[in-house]
Amino acid sequence: MNKYLVNGTDTERVNVADRGLQYGDGLFETLRMSAGCLEFADRHWRRLQTGCERLGIAFPGQTIIENDIIKLVEQQQDAVIKVIITRGQGGRGYRPTPDLQPTRIVSMHPVPLQPATEGVAVRLSQTRLSINPRLAGIKHLNRLEQVLARQEWSDPGVYESLMFDTAGRLVCGTMSNVFFRAGDRYLTPSVEQCGIAGVTRSVILDILESRNMPVQVDTIKIDDIEQVDEMFLCNSVFGIIPVRELERGNPQPGQWTGDAIDLFAETRRHKENHLCVE
Amino acid sequence: MNKYLVNGTDTERVNVADRGLQYGDGLFETLRMSAGCLEFADRHWRRLQTGCERLGIAFPGQTIIENDIIKLVEQQQDAVIKVIITRGQGGRGYRPTPDLQPTRIVSMHPVPLQPATEGVAVRLSQTRLSINPRLAGIKHLNRLEQVLARQEWSDPGVYESLMFDTAGRLVCGTMSNVFFRAGDRYLTPSVEQCGIAGVTRSVILDILESRNMPVQVDTIKIDDIEQVDEMFLCNSVFGIIPVRELERGNPQPGQWTGDAIDLFAETRRHKENHLCVE
Repeated sequence: MNKYLVNGTDTERVNVADRGLQYGDGLFETLRMSAGCLEFADRHWRRLQTGCERLGIAFPGQTIIENDIIKLVEQQQDAVIKVIITRGQGGRGYRPTPDLQPTRIVSMHPVPLQPATEGVAVRLSQTRLSINPRLAGIKHLNRLEQVLARQEWSDPGVYESLMFDTAGRLVCGTMSNVFFRAGDRYLTPSVEQCGIAGVTRSVILDILESRNMPVQVDTIKIDDIEQVDEMFLCNSVFGIIPVRELERGNPQPGQWTGDAIDLFAETRRHKENHLCVE
Repeated sequence: MNKYLVNGTDTERVNVADRGLQYGDGLFETLRMSAGCLEFADRHWRRLQTGCERLGIAFPGQTIIENDIIKLVEQQQDAVIKVIITRGQGGRGYRPTPDLQPTRIVSMHPVPLQPATEGVAVRLSQTRLSINPRLAGIKHLNRLEQVLARQEWSDPGVYESLMFDTAGRLVCGTMSNVFFRAGDRYLTPSVEQCGIAGVTRSVILDILESRNMPVQVDTIKIDDIEQVDEMFLCNSVFGIIPVRELERGNPQPGQWTGDAIDLFAETRRHKENHLCVE
């Protein structure tokens, strides 16, 4: 049941000269729609707008994107929604012409199977993330490193793979951000040098900080991983999922993970955090 | 007179689920066709094949690509030919499914105005290239850094901008490789950590080495640039072009640049180095 709208039109085709294809010159967002609500929509649009500003792409505005989504989903209540904004079509070589109209691609996909709530197994990736503060945090279309990392394993028993940057610092999973309990604090890697500033990550950080719970954004090296007590992954599709097995170290789902899951579930229940389509 | 073939079919449309668009999951080549000859075609196919191997994409083979080009160009004698190979369409998330059929996009474009033979002006880029040996050398579709660098200037009097990696080493221009004369040797930056191993760069290196002319692939830092005597740019579209003005330093077109231009022109005249369409 994959469905697509390109610039508001029901089509599965885009122009071959689109800069999204030619250069990866664009951004995307992946949102969860649950019971008719587009979860944390405002945070997604903020990140998308930040990405547009960083790349010098004209942000089309959230209204036009939301209207696309409303048109696309029809009666569907639960789905994964992907939004791609590219710089548009054309320009000679890398240089964009100033009059380009951004391309909007909105698509709807089935919700994948939720991973086991008791926790998942996680490996460590050989593929390194390259460092570039100019591109860090935003969700741009240059995703070859994630593709290469995802190709490293096919065992369906392994759910995710942790990625390190070329300086050996942990950044994120191929499709998720990562939190730890290390002693008496929550810990998550910085995404200032590379990686994506996940929406669910930002929700969790806000929840923990608003409750004065001890949380730190810090550098985590591979050896630090062996010391962590608990670990969980997060993204916009599955929310929070505990890690019960890691290639190195021995994190076990525990109280701190359970607290984060409960607090996040509570926040998720508040409809005012979402865009709820009547 | 831009013309496109997608998988051998005369169309300007590709499927929106193509991984080239979704993730920049593919490679490209830009070739010069001159007097009916596709210049240094074999070298382009070798780099493309190397790129496919590095990314785990099935290389479609040079014959099918050459047949596409022959079909596309018809009576045209002079053009720029761009070939894109993506991993194909689909797969859930970053993970490619094993049965994907690569997408071939072959396009023809007018030859841009040749830059002034007496030399061009070159600036220095603020946008850094990120380091990742896994992606270095090959001509993949993740080109946001080049797009950002090309956005830095609009002065038509400036032809190119030099890019440094995040460690401060010179790598290349936004759309070219770069050579210097520094004292009694030719010098060009390594592309082992990032950047593209240009076809024209490789031809020049082979020419110089085969004639026992002093040439070195070496690390060049920003301060080294101020010491160079001569400088020239190269790529597959314009060949070799001297630099007569640089934002830092004072290179002047001279004998060594002239020698490189002459030797390259001689090599270019040999039809056996090209694929000549009858």
